[in-house]
Amino acid sequence: MIDFTRRDMIAAAGGIAALALPGATACARADSRTLGYAVVGLGGYGLGRIVPEFANCAHSRLTGLVSGDRAKAERVAAEHGVPTRNIYDYANFDSIADNPNIDIVYVCLPNSMHAEYTIRAAKAGKHVMCEKPMAISSAECEAMIAACKAADRKLMIGYRCHFEATNLEAMRRARAGEIGTPRYFRSEHGFVQGDPTKWRLKKALAGGGSLMDIGIYALNAARYMTGEEPIAVYAHEQTDRSDPRFHEVEDMIEFQLEFPSGVIGSCMSMYSANQSHILLMGDKGRIELEPATGYSGHRLWVGRGRETEITPPPGPGKTQWAGQLDHLVQCIVEDREPIVSGTEGLRDLRIIEAIYRSAKERARVGLA
Amino acid sequence: MIDFTRRDMIAAAGGIAALALPGATACARADSRTLGYAVVGLGGYGLGRIVPEFANCAHSRLTGLVSGDRAKAERVAAEHGVPTRNIYDYANFDSIADNPNIDIVYVCLPNSMHAEYTIRAAKAGKHVMCEKPMAISSAECEAMIAACKAADRKLMIGYRCHFEATNLEAMRRARAGEIGTPRYFRSEHGFVQGDPTKWRLKKALAGGGSLMDIGIYALNAARYMTGEEPIAVYAHEQTDRSDPRFHEVEDMIEFQLEFPSGVIGSCMSMYSANQSHILLMGDKGRIELEPATGYSGHRLWVGRGRETEITPPPGPGKTQWAGQLDHLVQCIVEDREPIVSGTEGLRDLRIIEAIYRSAKERARVGLA
Repeated sequence: MIDFTRRDMIAAAGGIAALALPGATACARADSRTLGYAVVGLGGYGLGRIVPEFANCAHSRLTGLVSGDRAKAERVAAEHGVPTRNIYDYANFDSIADNPNIDIVYVCLPNSMHAEYTIRAAKAGKHVMCEKPMAISSAECEAMIAACKAADRKLMIGYRCHFEATNLEAMRRARAGEIGTPRYFRSEHGFVQGDPTKWRLKKALAGGGSLMDIGIYALNAARYMTGEEPIAVYAHEQTDRSDPRFHEVEDMIEFQLEFPSGVIGSCMSMYSANQSHILLMGDKGRIELEPATGYSGHRLWVGRGRETEITPPPGPGKTQWAGQLDHLVQCIVEDREPIVSGTEGLRDLRIIEAIYRSAKERARVGLA
Repeated sequence: MIDFTRRDMIAAAGGIAALALPGATACARADSRTLGYAVVGLGGYGLGRIVPEFANCAHSRLTGLVSGDRAKAERVAAEHGVPTRNIYDYANFDSIADNPNIDIVYVCLPNSMHAEYTIRAAKAGKHVMCEKPMAISSAECEAMIAACKAADRKLMIGYRCHFEATNLEAMRRARAGEIGTPRYFRSEHGFVQGDPTKWRLKKALAGGGSLMDIGIYALNAARYMTGEEPIAVYAHEQTDRSDPRFHEVEDMIEFQLEFPSGVIGSCMSMYSANQSHILLMGDKGRIELEPATGYSGHRLWVGRGRETEITPPPGPGKTQWAGQLDHLVQCIVEDREPIVSGTEGLRDLRIIEAIYRSAKERARVGLA
């Protein structure tokens, strides 16, 4: 499936070309198995977080940009050694199909656009990295999975914590039985949302409020820390609708998860207070992370309380983003499923839908 | 209502008598406004925790003992300077009415006996301190309140955390607005329950499992940290009924509380893992206690995270128990309601009943 010879040549060519340009570091470090990414959406996350991370990658290069703002795209392209011919806008996006320098499309658009651009990318023959939440409905997720399958392309969701050293070490120790039988999982995730004009506060673009944005970390962690899928949820939402930030989307939503083993999960999502915390309690101790899923500064304790802080072994990449970006490349090269594939994103969306339904109906909702 | 002259004489006489005996410290420190307590039930808490605390009191003296084990009671009496004539058993308990050295009865019996002994004590003309949970049903609580009211006696519940310096400082800072508007309260309380033969694991004696014993700390804290009464609950119970400890009572029960201001409360009670934690998050910061409600070693942080640990000013008593014991004396002397009166215990029991009902029905239960 992968034309290694062509890839090698592209990688080598990219490396040589890049040496003469700013941002050469990324390409200079690349070995023969590198693939090229086009980042779609040059907003805070795409431009601020993803674009600079290619410098930390071993197998991933930034080779394309998709933006509605040509001037901005040109600035970014110049800074990161992306040829201007590899800049696209939303009108000509599908012609990316003809560009052999772009292997993967990284969708960093508002949530409501994830499905469309993932499907269009797959149809253009590109593998897809899609930011979380995967989409704004499980139906969209299913369509995205189907489109990538039909095009025989990989689909991965941007769950960076699965490549973050502290979270990985927490998972490993939970699975190794270091705290005995897990009994209770808890996670709160929140931050104080500011500007009411942000797309994240518009229902049509975001699909929901804090749960779609930050609470999904608690939900995903409930699953990766327990290694189980919930069988039922109960949720309670609390939003001050008179607050201009929350005219359209929820502020606080708390949800309880029931797991088959009997573990109880308790999660909180909020746009009105700051928290990034994960706790897994077992009958012989506990694992705690705080901050748990931030961009940096993660801390981990394992034991009876916070007496013993753990320094985890290095993660798979130089940074969590580098690990994430390179993982998809390796999955493509080795033709295997990403550890956080579309199925992983779909699972979260199905639970998110059940959470919203539970909060609306004020009743427990079972999960098939 | 209080005969100060008689009390003064009794106190003085007690002080003098006690000087010749071991345990004189308690009495030697007592000033003129002291009252005498009879401790009912010489089990782990009554004997292990309450009896020694009179040595730390300024207004409370141990003047009586009620036990089914005469030999044990005599040993304790000798050790603490209690005259043997002030030893009662459960058969002759009501004759305590004739003993002017006993002003207050402290009920430290299994939960199912709280109502009976509180009512009998009130009928014997004694004020009552009753250990938490106040009783095993709200109906019992109502009968206890009515009996004490009819006898014109004070009734206080042994909520020691209301006299514990760290918890008091946490409440004060919450009320002072130091973390802005409270948004979310969370508390987990649990320990690993051992011996399956304990009365606490017998439904008839305990009235319930971890919630009655340790989870009530989370519930009570939800109320004293927010300063609000919940309007609805949702609970989920998880118990391994094949575990010999849990044939009759629940292990884990998680409950969500809805408060009128919009604060969400999330509480966990468990008999299969250790935790003593309180968190109140506001839009400008958080207050955290851990261990929160133990016998010692309380820690408190106020701010964005755990950067700033707070050393609280001293509590009202030398210890939380001394503060608790002396508070009831002062309330009797000054004829005012204890801050944790029978009404406080009743409120918790009504919520506990709603929690159990919610867990059973798997549905949200509103609170009147």
